[in-house]
Order: sequence, then structure tokens, then C-alpha cells
Amino acid sequence: MTGYFITFEGGEGAGKTSILHSIASKLKEKGYDIVTTREPGGIRISEQIRNIILNPLHTEMDARTEALLYAAARRQHLVEKVFPALEQGKIVLCDRFIDSSLAYQGYARELGIDEVFTINQFAIQNSMPDLTLFFDIKPEKGLARIAANEDRERNRLDLEKLNFHEKVYEAYQILVQRFPERIQVINADQTLKQVEEDSLSLITQFLNTIE
Amino acid sequence: MTGYFITFEGGEGAGKTSILHSIASKLKEKGYDIVTTREPGGIRISEQIRNIILNPLHTEMDARTEALLYAAARRQHLVEKVFPALEQGKIVLCDRFIDSSLAYQGYARELGIDEVFTINQFAIQNSMPDLTLFFDIKPEKGLARIAANEDRERNRLDLEKLNFHEKVYEAYQILVQRFPERIQVINADQTLKQVEEDSLSLITQFLNTIE
Repeated sequence: MTGYFITFEGGEGAGKTSILHSIASKLKEKGYDIVTTREPGGIRISEQIRNIILNPLHTEMDARTEALLYAAARRQHLVEKVFPALEQGKIVLCDRFIDSSLAYQGYARELGIDEVFTINQFAIQNSMPDLTLFFDIKPEKGLARIAANEDRERNRLDLEKLNFHEKVYEAYQILVQRFPERIQVINADQTLKQVEEDSLSLITQFLNTIE
Repeated sequence: MTGYFITFEGGEGAGKTSILHSIASKLKEKGYDIVTTREPGGIRISEQIRNIILNPLHTEMDARTEALLYAAARRQHLVEKVFPALEQGKIVLCDRFIDSSLAYQGYARELGIDEVFTINQFAIQNSMPDLTLFFDIKPEKGLARIAANEDRERNRLDLEKLNFHEKVYEAYQILVQRFPERIQVINADQTLKQVEEDSLSLITQFLNTIE
């Protein structure tokens, strides 16, 4: 694989999705070959899996079932979309990846970070991201941003209580400690423009160093 | 958990499904409290997962995705149906369980028995069956039985080539070696009546010994 795999991580309302797209445009202007994606990424099998996971009616969903379904959707998305792009030497910017499962299912739902890592290893076969940006913002602030955005569709995760999102935030702190080389922290509690600048500078620095 | 968990395993056309039901009737007549099930077992989340797995159009399905989906459906079925029955002291007869994944995905699809065992351990959390009956019949014979039965619905697995089913058969031989205490071999290349008698005698012997 000759491309680079860069993932964007953080709690709800951290702004990572819109920043991912604006950064992608800027990197394309600089001549980089960019693919933007997020699970399930238009992969029909993964889309169908995601529909099962996020259906608000599925309140009986067991946390381990959920973790396995995320890993399955991740696998198919990797095989059909991410791996082919990396093989073509592209830079893949992906909105959420394994760290989301470690934070949400592993830590916040208390399945254990290591246990959830194990099933994800089965799915990704050592294809960890080359670089991960963690968009750091306190959950109260992130959730307030979501609440202010009426266009945003609510899903099963948005309906979780603040306490759950606080555990997700704690989890990301743990992951930053555990993967200090890979995960870089972006202060997301700034203007969108500033967060975008910080992210772009971090990514271009990474690409300059590595190439 | 005070009940007993008994699983029925084997290749296609081994007769295990019809034997499971006739044995259940006989055990009920003897006064045992029996629950018969098979994954996905009417559990709506598991049914939806199974629909994704067995859809004949999904030829792009990666083997690891498939294995993770089976583990997810298994988990939900266990939590909603098997665990509650075992907690009520019932005897659960289940048509296929973890050994099917080890044989089909682990060995026949070459993902590795140990790797597939690991993700299933995440799903079942040490809830291995108390007893497993392996219905031993050569794949050519099993498939011939299926071919003769026009009422049987064909799914994605039935469409696999003979070579695949031979690997599944090999896999079960390996599992019998690996779990000699748990897995008992039934000669399924006999009349249905004889197979049924052998199975019933094995299960009643197990129940008499353990109680």
C-alpha cells in the first residue's frame, strides 16, 4: 500500500466532518490525490449493517452485538473502498474509524478497550491509520453545537445521555495516551477557521515529513 | 445458569434439523423442559443480520465481514433467547452454533480456526455448549440428499462447490479432535430412524450422567 490513511476522531459536535471536507478541498488544490470517506461509505453491505445499528427502534441491541456489527461494516468498507484507494497511492481521509469503536463500545459501553481492539484487529488486519486527528472539545460544548444545528439528523447515539458522551471523551484521552505517535490532538474549541488551519498544518507537516 | 445447552452440527444435508425436532418431542414426552432454536431464532436484529449474510446477491461479501456478522447474530440470539432459557433451567437444543463458524469461516474460508474462535469468544463469553452432536456424513451424500429435496430453499451456502463442503467436513474432523469431551460423533449415514435413536440415546445418557 503506497497511500496514506488519515482518520478524524472525536465526540459528537466536534466539527470533524465539516473540517474533513474543507481540508480535502485545500489538499486537492495543493495537488494531493484525496479520497474522503466515512463508514459505511456507500458500500451497500456496510450501509445495510449501519441501518441495523442506528435504527432507533433497536433498543434491545446488546453492546457486543453492536461492536461486532461496527467491525463488520468497517471490514467491508475497508476492502471495497479504503484498500483500493491506498493501493492506488491516494490519501484517504476517513471520518471515524477504529478509535470510535474503542471509545464508544470499548470504554463508554464498558466492553473493554482491549476486547474491542481484538475484534477490530480481525476486521482491519493491522491496517491502522497512519495519522489520526482527535478533535478535542468538552462534550457539553459539542452537544450544544449539535442542538443548535436543526438540520442535523438525530440517530441512536445522539439520544444517549451526557454521561455517556463524557465517558467517550475520557476514552479518547486514554487513546491519545496509548497511541501518542499516531493520534494528534487538535483543539476543537476554537473558531472553525482556526481548527481548520491547525488541522491542515498538521496534515501537511505529516505529509512533508513522510514523503 | 442451570439449564443445558446442546448444539447440533454438521454439513449440509446431514439431517440434523429434522432430527433435532423429533428428538425434542421425545425428550418433552420424557418430561424434560426443552427449547428448540437455531440462529437467528426469530430475534429481529439477528434475522436482519442473517438476511444480509445469506442474500445471494451479496457476492462481494468479504469472508471476515461474514464471520463478524455471524458472531453478531449469534450474540443477539444468545442474549435474547438462549441465556434466558438456560437461566430458567431449560434444555436448549440449538441447530448450529460456534462450530459452524469455526468450520465454514475459520477453516473452509481459510480465516483460521483460532482467529474465528477469538471473535466468537467476544460474542459468547465462554458460553460454550455443554454437549455438541456432530452428524457425520460425507459431503457428496449430504448434498445428494439436499438435491433430492425439492422443497428446501437454496441459500448462498448451498451454491458453494463440492470442494467447499469437503473442507467443511475436514474442519469438523479437526474440531472433533480439538474438543473431544464436548463433541460427540453421530453416524449420520444411516436411516433417519437409526440416527435419531443414536442421538436420543447419547443425549439421555449425557443428561443422566450430569444430573
